[in-house]
Amino acid sequence: MFEFEITAKCRTTGARAGKLVTPHGTIETPAFMPVGTQATVKAMTPPELKEIGAQVILCNTYHLYLRPGMEVIELAGGLHLFMGWDRPILTDSGGFQVFSLSELRNVTGDGVEFRSHIDGSRHFMTPELSMEVQRSLGSDIVMCFDECVKLPAAEDVSLAAMGRTLKWAERCRDFFSSRGIQNQALFGIVQGALFGDQRAYCSKRLAEIGFDGYAVGGLSVGETHEEMYRILDVTDATLPRAKPRYLMGVGMPENLIESVARGVDMFDCVLPTRNGRNGNLFTSAGRINIKNARFERDFSPIDETCDCYACKNFTRAYVRHLYRSGEILAARLCSWHNLRFLVRMMQNARNAIIEGSYPKFRSETLAVLGIAA
Amino acid sequence: MFEFEITAKCRTTGARAGKLVTPHGTIETPAFMPVGTQATVKAMTPPELKEIGAQVILCNTYHLYLRPGMEVIELAGGLHLFMGWDRPILTDSGGFQVFSLSELRNVTGDGVEFRSHIDGSRHFMTPELSMEVQRSLGSDIVMCFDECVKLPAAEDVSLAAMGRTLKWAERCRDFFSSRGIQNQALFGIVQGALFGDQRAYCSKRLAEIGFDGYAVGGLSVGETHEEMYRILDVTDATLPRAKPRYLMGVGMPENLIESVARGVDMFDCVLPTRNGRNGNLFTSAGRINIKNARFERDFSPIDETCDCYACKNFTRAYVRHLYRSGEILAARLCSWHNLRFLVRMMQNARNAIIEGSYPKFRSETLAVLGIAA
Repeated sequence: MFEFEITAKCRTTGARAGKLVTPHGTIETPAFMPVGTQATVKAMTPPELKEIGAQVILCNTYHLYLRPGMEVIELAGGLHLFMGWDRPILTDSGGFQVFSLSELRNVTGDGVEFRSHIDGSRHFMTPELSMEVQRSLGSDIVMCFDECVKLPAAEDVSLAAMGRTLKWAERCRDFFSSRGIQNQALFGIVQGALFGDQRAYCSKRLAEIGFDGYAVGGLSVGETHEEMYRILDVTDATLPRAKPRYLMGVGMPENLIESVARGVDMFDCVLPTRNGRNGNLFTSAGRINIKNARFERDFSPIDETCDCYACKNFTRAYVRHLYRSGEILAARLCSWHNLRFLVRMMQNARNAIIEGSYPKFRSETLAVLGIAA
Repeated sequence: MFEFEITAKCRTTGARAGKLVTPHGTIETPAFMPVGTQATVKAMTPPELKEIGAQVILCNTYHLYLRPGMEVIELAGGLHLFMGWDRPILTDSGGFQVFSLSELRNVTGDGVEFRSHIDGSRHFMTPELSMEVQRSLGSDIVMCFDECVKLPAAEDVSLAAMGRTLKWAERCRDFFSSRGIQNQALFGIVQGALFGDQRAYCSKRLAEIGFDGYAVGGLSVGETHEEMYRILDVTDATLPRAKPRYLMGVGMPENLIESVARGVDMFDCVLPTRNGRNGNLFTSAGRINIKNARFERDFSPIDETCDCYACKNFTRAYVRHLYRSGEILAARLCSWHNLRFLVRMMQNARNAIIEGSYPKFRSETLAVLGIAA
């Protein structure tokens, strides 16, 4: 039920265009995945997500496990039916949130004890439980339960976490294999902080275990862009080329452009919706904050080159007024635009790869974003 | 450019079906007007408002005068273009908000000095300024500047305010007449608190001055339903029958049903959107609050009989989850449903009047709402 086909490759960079077939539809890559943490992409409806061209969304296992809980989602018939989204869903494993959001973590070889950030209740998450929860959610793409360390990380701390991540990846693989699961894909996650050799080791070991796709975790957590790209050069060289690669939690336009050049096919990030709710907008000429007084009488759209509902129907002056007035429509229009911006950027990247012009697209896009290629 | 035609009358109640022609389209009455205080109906886009059948919206002069201010809206080409709504707009006069929201009011015969609730800045609103502001906004229906007293009101306090309201109504009428304004309709506002004789006096004097329509103000501010209906019996008997009548700020379903029976054609209220944001939902079987634990595993729609986007696509269990999770989509879906509920109720009332079955519609609707007719 899953198949990944690379339909075009860039001759000078690692960029590739592909098609990932899933039970809920095909994802054309490179692709940006909007984040629907709590079974909703903040401020958006499913038809609006389709309108902006979203092919797949990410939902958070940790949040949904705690609220509304698995029983409600199982009774609804799974996450797709619960939230009214009939295209592919990728669920993360809960690992990142257990380590970043929850309190009183206690990591053992078996799993992680943590307290809910909502009500303080005590839970114990294991690779097997993460798999079971993601089975209940019924996502198309399931992520292995991993341990993500904070940066800067000491070499031995990173190594221990990467070692656990590999052991847990084996247990996730065993869970899938022993049950003969066919209708969900399982992706492994590369950890290893900023240590290139740890990243290379982890990539190769994951490839030996064998997954339907490979994610790069533990980036976009405070490192410089150059450090991120250095690690992606390592994973590009060491991960299997025939499988989809997913860079977790990265959503800055320039990072997407550079990561595609390093063989990444999929991205997710809360940035477009979180920034949107704060009035921070991506434009083809760089970022703006709509709160700024210079937009008071600016009757041009957010971005002249954008085809989204917000840009086709409203002015900066109006969106600024909505934002200053605390109106929900401000969050809606800004989220809508930012999501469309990233989805469209990946559509354009894909077209450029297919046309054989990715290097030109890359340098031109970085130039208008105000970043030297 | 304005015309009001009564197309059907109920034989046993005061209910009537009509058509109000305006420069931005025809309003079929009885009609409920969603409130777009700050140039947006909270959480909704213009196409969504059209989808729920909104024919006209109300915007607040007081809020828009203070923010973004008239210059921005004039530069945008008026309120319709600023907010992207091409159907009729009714603007209130700012009177109600000056008396309810602002601080340090000082009423003189000439107007009202007040301080902005946003930044404390000092302003002086007069009937003429209210007319000028509503000219700049470019609304289809302009309301006279009036004084609304708090209930309970002493007879002399109400009389003085009603007297000023009449004087100010004359000045608003003069403003329109002396400029030969044709592209905006001017509605007078009946005041007089709960004193039937003051209401009758005010109605008759307004009719002598002569307006394109007549509003009943100063209700739904704490009085009982019976007191409201008693006043509406008075205004029904004393206001010109050939002109549209508008009951300001009333939005409880049972009040709409009873007011239509007393000759009211138009309504506005923040209730559907404000309640929506609080998870309070109108249904054909009475009100529910979606927060309630009994909806945790309720996979039926908000209202089985409703045709809105929320009811056709989502369950109570999902909307409850969104609400508990603090998601914007909860406010959107609940506002959407509540607005559709009232707009559709008025469409059904209109159809019943045309079919000659309003008394039956009235008693049946009140019965399912759990209210004895």
